[in-house]
Amino acid sequence: MNPETSGAGALPPVGAAAPEVPTHGPGADAVHGTRLDPWLHAYADRAHSMKASEIRALFAVANRPEVVSLAGGMPYLEGLPLDALGEMSHRVLANRGTTALQYGSAQGDETLREQILEVMALEGIEAHSDDVVVTTGSQQALDLVTRIFINPGDVVVAEAPSYVGALGVFRAHQADVVHVPLDAAGLIPAALEETLASLARAGRSVKLLYTVPNFHNPAGVTLSAERRPQILEIARRYGVLVLEDNPYGLLGFEGDPIPAMRSLDTDGVVYLGSFSKTFAPGYRIGWAVAPHAVREKLVLASESAILCPSNASQLAISAYLETCDWRGQIKAFCELYRERRDAMVGALAEHLPDASWTVPDGGFYTWVKLPAGLDSKAMLPRAVTARVAYVPGTAFYANGEGSDHMRLSFCFPSPERIREGVRRLAGVVAGESELVSLFGVSGARTHDDVQQPGPNVS
Amino acid sequence: MNPETSGAGALPPVGAAAPEVPTHGPGADAVHGTRLDPWLHAYADRAHSMKASEIRALFAVANRPEVVSLAGGMPYLEGLPLDALGEMSHRVLANRGTTALQYGSAQGDETLREQILEVMALEGIEAHSDDVVVTTGSQQALDLVTRIFINPGDVVVAEAPSYVGALGVFRAHQADVVHVPLDAAGLIPAALEETLASLARAGRSVKLLYTVPNFHNPAGVTLSAERRPQILEIARRYGVLVLEDNPYGLLGFEGDPIPAMRSLDTDGVVYLGSFSKTFAPGYRIGWAVAPHAVREKLVLASESAILCPSNASQLAISAYLETCDWRGQIKAFCELYRERRDAMVGALAEHLPDASWTVPDGGFYTWVKLPAGLDSKAMLPRAVTARVAYVPGTAFYANGEGSDHMRLSFCFPSPERIREGVRRLAGVVAGESELVSLFGVSGARTHDDVQQPGPNVS
Repeated sequence: MNPETSGAGALPPVGAAAPEVPTHGPGADAVHGTRLDPWLHAYADRAHSMKASEIRALFAVANRPEVVSLAGGMPYLEGLPLDALGEMSHRVLANRGTTALQYGSAQGDETLREQILEVMALEGIEAHSDDVVVTTGSQQALDLVTRIFINPGDVVVAEAPSYVGALGVFRAHQADVVHVPLDAAGLIPAALEETLASLARAGRSVKLLYTVPNFHNPAGVTLSAERRPQILEIARRYGVLVLEDNPYGLLGFEGDPIPAMRSLDTDGVVYLGSFSKTFAPGYRIGWAVAPHAVREKLVLASESAILCPSNASQLAISAYLETCDWRGQIKAFCELYRERRDAMVGALAEHLPDASWTVPDGGFYTWVKLPAGLDSKAMLPRAVTARVAYVPGTAFYANGEGSDHMRLSFCFPSPERIREGVRRLAGVVAGESELVSLFGVSGARTHDDVQQPGPNVS
Repeated sequence: MNPETSGAGALPPVGAAAPEVPTHGPGADAVHGTRLDPWLHAYADRAHSMKASEIRALFAVANRPEVVSLAGGMPYLEGLPLDALGEMSHRVLANRGTTALQYGSAQGDETLREQILEVMALEGIEAHSDDVVVTTGSQQALDLVTRIFINPGDVVVAEAPSYVGALGVFRAHQADVVHVPLDAAGLIPAALEETLASLARAGRSVKLLYTVPNFHNPAGVTLSAERRPQILEIARRYGVLVLEDNPYGLLGFEGDPIPAMRSLDTDGVVYLGSFSKTFAPGYRIGWAVAPHAVREKLVLASESAILCPSNASQLAISAYLETCDWRGQIKAFCELYRERRDAMVGALAEHLPDASWTVPDGGFYTWVKLPAGLDSKAMLPRAVTARVAYVPGTAFYANGEGSDHMRLSFCFPSPERIREGVRRLAGVVAGESELVSLFGVSGARTHDDVQQPGPNVS
């Protein structure tokens, strides 16, 4: 049993495992009217660890228009030239329709892979198009890399906190995630060294170091240029492959991007990129750059998983990169998100002076530490009742930590909505703080302990 | 080691495993100038079973314009109204761009799932849109179902022969595939019963019965209406979930479709559908219909694998289904493919009277049994030299059988090209037969045995 699915979570997990009442194969009678899963006996071991992410459970509630969602990581797309993109799509289908609508290569369209090299060059990466594998979003690349390297019980080292979607992939492949702390300059080299040494002494099989070096999700920090070679050197010394996940790297608010880790190390890094944040996630196009032999495995694994990425999507993005000012579009996104970051940190300073938070130099997220005694997961139903949503910090840890933090995203709502959301959040925090000072415990947390009806989330 | 990657195959397998010379972690020196894979020690067990499908290795060669490819399963798309589809795509982006280009739900677009119900109703399926999960082609659904149910060493029962892409998925998840024979009326119920009884006696864990009931890939046969309930009853009795893969069901050449197995059994069947053959594969949109609890697992597994299917693709297909005469388009495809089927079987009768073959009532493929003594895999390089390509029968078995068969597809080349391809193939068969009658063995087969240089495939 996964403790997180069996706990009395404030929001019902979507797709939680069916109750494990006795069953004897398909056709077993329902007991006490409970709807049984006739295939419960047949699932693979890994399926028992599949559980809904807290972000996903949130979406159903937080998508209501009256809720200010500071939860999701959806980019803001209204600024895209939609009519021009439509015309471009028309031309692609009219002129190259029999290619766009046909099966393609498992590795991805050659022209698009060449163009991806230009995108990556902005972060100092030199590669060959043959090193690139196009995937269904970089999430698929994450899944494929994990599939290729992880046996059940293998260790993945990841920042504390780490991207919830990556933790879900690692869990689905029955990896053990070991967290390493980060600070304002990103992953801490000494802490990484200590963790890897300790894992080596324990005889553990450590396969991957998963890291989001730029504008970290959820922590908002960036790995400094000084630390990058240090981290790579430590990983190399312990024989651990670095999985560099970089969806936000071009969305910096100040100065030029820091060179990617992949620009410093060709053989020890699998690099993941994406068009989801710098252009549009709806095409589901990301990519991996990997050492030669790993790239071959990635192509085979992708072929097995989906045959090939969508030619329609690839040709649309290829046409966009060829005919539109994509660098200008990224610059416009940076300005948009900087304004929202400023609205977020300004509102936090005004309304939540007892909390602390990171001030990101780019990307979508800030990581907020709550005043002492508050539990972000327990507080969430109250927040949603107050029409504001966030992601509790526990979502970003594989070990149940993080309840004193929350992730706030500033990518999607307008600056005004962000300020209103933080204002609402401050009211919730004040109410919770009062409960804590009166009773010494976060009010909603009694729900978990004594199974009383929880706060109404609707 | 996988014997099929280490064998001296006629065509070099793309992405074959690197040579297993000793290595001691990343940074190990190259031995004798061999390019080592520094991560060879780190792969998961499952990665060692990832190998290039014979179809994939073929594509590189068979895509040359001078080769008549009877190998691939690419639909013929010239008949689609490409300009109208382009205009439709323009409207989708101009009017619904911020949805089309955004992340969507992991389960798939609600409207598209409703429309998929209409498509499936043509084969007698009654379902609810909540039962449907949209996937990145039905290949992804295959992968997800396998991921949910298969532990290493579990058994998947499949027709002999079976779809090469499904065998690849089962192998990637370390399943053991046990084949059950089919005949002109499809999977043989008595043989299935016997196989399942034998596996039960051996104490094996049998999880799935994988079947392509309509216009089978590669065998070209269709499971009769009479046998469908029999197969379902046997599977139910042994507690085995039926995985009904039906990409070709609406592409029949005579009369109405036979009701799908899913129309007869809601709890015991996971049904896979696809727009790749009835519309266009380039959008990569397929779907699964599953019993409720399995459907929940599928959504979670898909979220972990790709976050969500492409909204751009889903909205494009949804608009196509809403505004275009998709039933008329399928009817046009049926007429096109019937003409090509006729060209294929006519040419086989004229040029290869010593072979035998199935005459499919729909779909893309015929399954050809070669004259005695010939080996389709060994013969392939000679065929490509003669500018005709096919898929050797061995690709469709998990156990190395099938060398006396080949799959010929009639979907993509024109009737004239099909006739020319079969004519060339007949020349190759005649040459091979002569070698067999002179030396008692297929000429190219000596390549495998004595490591002489193989026939030049270029």
